[in-house]
Amino acid sequence: MMPTSLFTQLQRSSECGARRGVLSTKHGMVQTPVFMPVGTQGTVKAVTVENLRELGAQIILGNTYHLFIRPGHEMIERFGGLHGFINWNRPILTDSGGFQIFSLKELASITEDGATFRSHLDGSKKFLSPEDAVAVQESLGSDIMMCLDTCIPYPADRNQTEEATALTGRWARRCRDAHRKKDQLLFGITQGGMFADLRRQSAETLIGIGFDGYAIGGLSVGESKSQMHDMTEATVAHLPDEQPVYLMGVGTPEDLVDGVWRGVDMFDCVLPTRNARNGMLFTSHGKVVIKNSRYRQDPAPIDERCQCYTCSNYSRAYLRHLFVSREILSYHLNTIHNLHFYVNLMQEIRDAIEKDCFASFRNDFYGRLEGE
Amino acid sequence: MMPTSLFTQLQRSSECGARRGVLSTKHGMVQTPVFMPVGTQGTVKAVTVENLRELGAQIILGNTYHLFIRPGHEMIERFGGLHGFINWNRPILTDSGGFQIFSLKELASITEDGATFRSHLDGSKKFLSPEDAVAVQESLGSDIMMCLDTCIPYPADRNQTEEATALTGRWARRCRDAHRKKDQLLFGITQGGMFADLRRQSAETLIGIGFDGYAIGGLSVGESKSQMHDMTEATVAHLPDEQPVYLMGVGTPEDLVDGVWRGVDMFDCVLPTRNARNGMLFTSHGKVVIKNSRYRQDPAPIDERCQCYTCSNYSRAYLRHLFVSREILSYHLNTIHNLHFYVNLMQEIRDAIEKDCFASFRNDFYGRLEGE
Repeated sequence: MMPTSLFTQLQRSSECGARRGVLSTKHGMVQTPVFMPVGTQGTVKAVTVENLRELGAQIILGNTYHLFIRPGHEMIERFGGLHGFINWNRPILTDSGGFQIFSLKELASITEDGATFRSHLDGSKKFLSPEDAVAVQESLGSDIMMCLDTCIPYPADRNQTEEATALTGRWARRCRDAHRKKDQLLFGITQGGMFADLRRQSAETLIGIGFDGYAIGGLSVGESKSQMHDMTEATVAHLPDEQPVYLMGVGTPEDLVDGVWRGVDMFDCVLPTRNARNGMLFTSHGKVVIKNSRYRQDPAPIDERCQCYTCSNYSRAYLRHLFVSREILSYHLNTIHNLHFYVNLMQEIRDAIEKDCFASFRNDFYGRLEGE
Repeated sequence: MMPTSLFTQLQRSSECGARRGVLSTKHGMVQTPVFMPVGTQGTVKAVTVENLRELGAQIILGNTYHLFIRPGHEMIERFGGLHGFINWNRPILTDSGGFQIFSLKELASITEDGATFRSHLDGSKKFLSPEDAVAVQESLGSDIMMCLDTCIPYPADRNQTEEATALTGRWARRCRDAHRKKDQLLFGITQGGMFADLRRQSAETLIGIGFDGYAIGGLSVGESKSQMHDMTEATVAHLPDEQPVYLMGVGTPEDLVDGVWRGVDMFDCVLPTRNARNGMLFTSHGKVVIKNSRYRQDPAPIDERCQCYTCSNYSRAYLRHLFVSREILSYHLNTIHNLHFYVNLMQEIRDAIEKDCFASFRNDFYGRLEGE
């Protein structure tokens, strides 16, 4: 049974664009603002679904492109969709593959009909139309699906940006028209590159079609932070309050705080998980690069403020030893910590908005980082 | 407080050499027969100490050579020994480094005084005497320490074997003389190659010195199974009932059953953990090579009889997907399963000996394997 309102705005900050919300999905509610760990190939790298539950992850992201290539969406559908296949019974958002296809560069070509590309695994030729992208995601059974979009490289001239943004709009309409399974939500992705007016146009186009949520695509592609902030603001200004705003592929802890400040409700990024495997750990006082010799005999946990399994059980010295020894346990423990850090940060952000003291929270957050 | 008897024989099989026992150590009791997961570099690869507890591991093994090289025993001592450093509060057995040094081949040379070798990490020159091996293990604080021994290659002629066996005996005496910390047990390692009479001599030499346990070294080095069984029997025949018998570096599930049959109480082997990372999983019906295409859409768990976290939560199809995708989660989940299989096998072995039906257990065990 679907509730009357898919997204409920619980509270707005009196100080900025931040807001508390709750998004209803088939597999449960998601309290926003929220960070979604990325589970590209049907696993959030190096951790189990039990670890994810324990550290408080509410929703994870799966990559349609990768799962389409391997093991294939039809097989996954027979296993009860992605939820059944990977044994995660909380919400899942799937992206459409647009960004991955774009990342294939010379191996991909975009036409009005869709995207033709060669599999990164075996070079075989594939085609994905907007309708296909929806069909694949319906097979995967994700709670939130994304429209197939065309990504705009950075930098890109106005002409290139206009064309890609307009095509994204036409593809979005085709995705909406192809959408059958109404217990799965569908979000549109705004583009517009680094042009505020094109960002507005893109938003208005998508609102005209009508989606369950609106994402901001094509950021964190090499632009400056101030460009990213400007384009976020330029887009959010034209998005309706009644749907969640999702800033795709973002970001660092500071980006999360700054995005929430500007009205963003949802984020995803490989940063915490990828950095974990590279020995780069987030703490309230800044980064800990665990292989650094200064940690060789450090008995402290990664972060004194952190309650994760890793910080509750292991010293920096041991974690450094594991990392320089290239032990698999290093990646597992580091990932648990980084994800817990991100998920906990979002919890603190939600608490601060609820108490309408997000400005003060943001000051303290930056103060702790700079204090180091 | 140390109990009157370090090793208590609880029950003997009326059908074979198998026996139930309990070994008392500083960090707790170990029910035997027992299998010890190998934690070479201060971690049993790909799993946490919590995973180890949950799957029922009673005791793990640490490699002195590796820990001596990195991060160093003096540092580990400052962290409360290996137990404190890795956060494992159950028993730990450390080997002496003899086998690892032997495995360095041209990088190592053995003299009466000890072993000179070059670190596999940075090529720096190191020396380890029998006294050093004990000192390092005393710093590590393991519950059970092993004498420094000289390993005999396979094949080896009688002369070579006699000399190495005699040297092992002289080093064992020096280890015993150097042993200070009496809350840490010290086991001797019998050698003798493939010569039954040298095996007997080696056993008698070590008994004459007096140890808390006796290991059978230099097996599983390329000899046939029947040679391994013969040499096991040839050694056990001359070992006292009052101390546990430890068959080092063994083995497959069949080797464990066959070793227990012949009176072995303790085993260690990298096989379950290494095979896990290579996608080779043990089941009651034989091996499952998970990458095989026959598992591509198989919804069954690895082993229907298994109660481990992996078998309780994930299908063969998903595990195959993870393995072919080279996901870290694959190694973690496979290792949990294989270790649980081994630990559970030992539990079943202990139960069968207690009920004095080990012969029947062994028949059923082989019947299930051959039935596939």
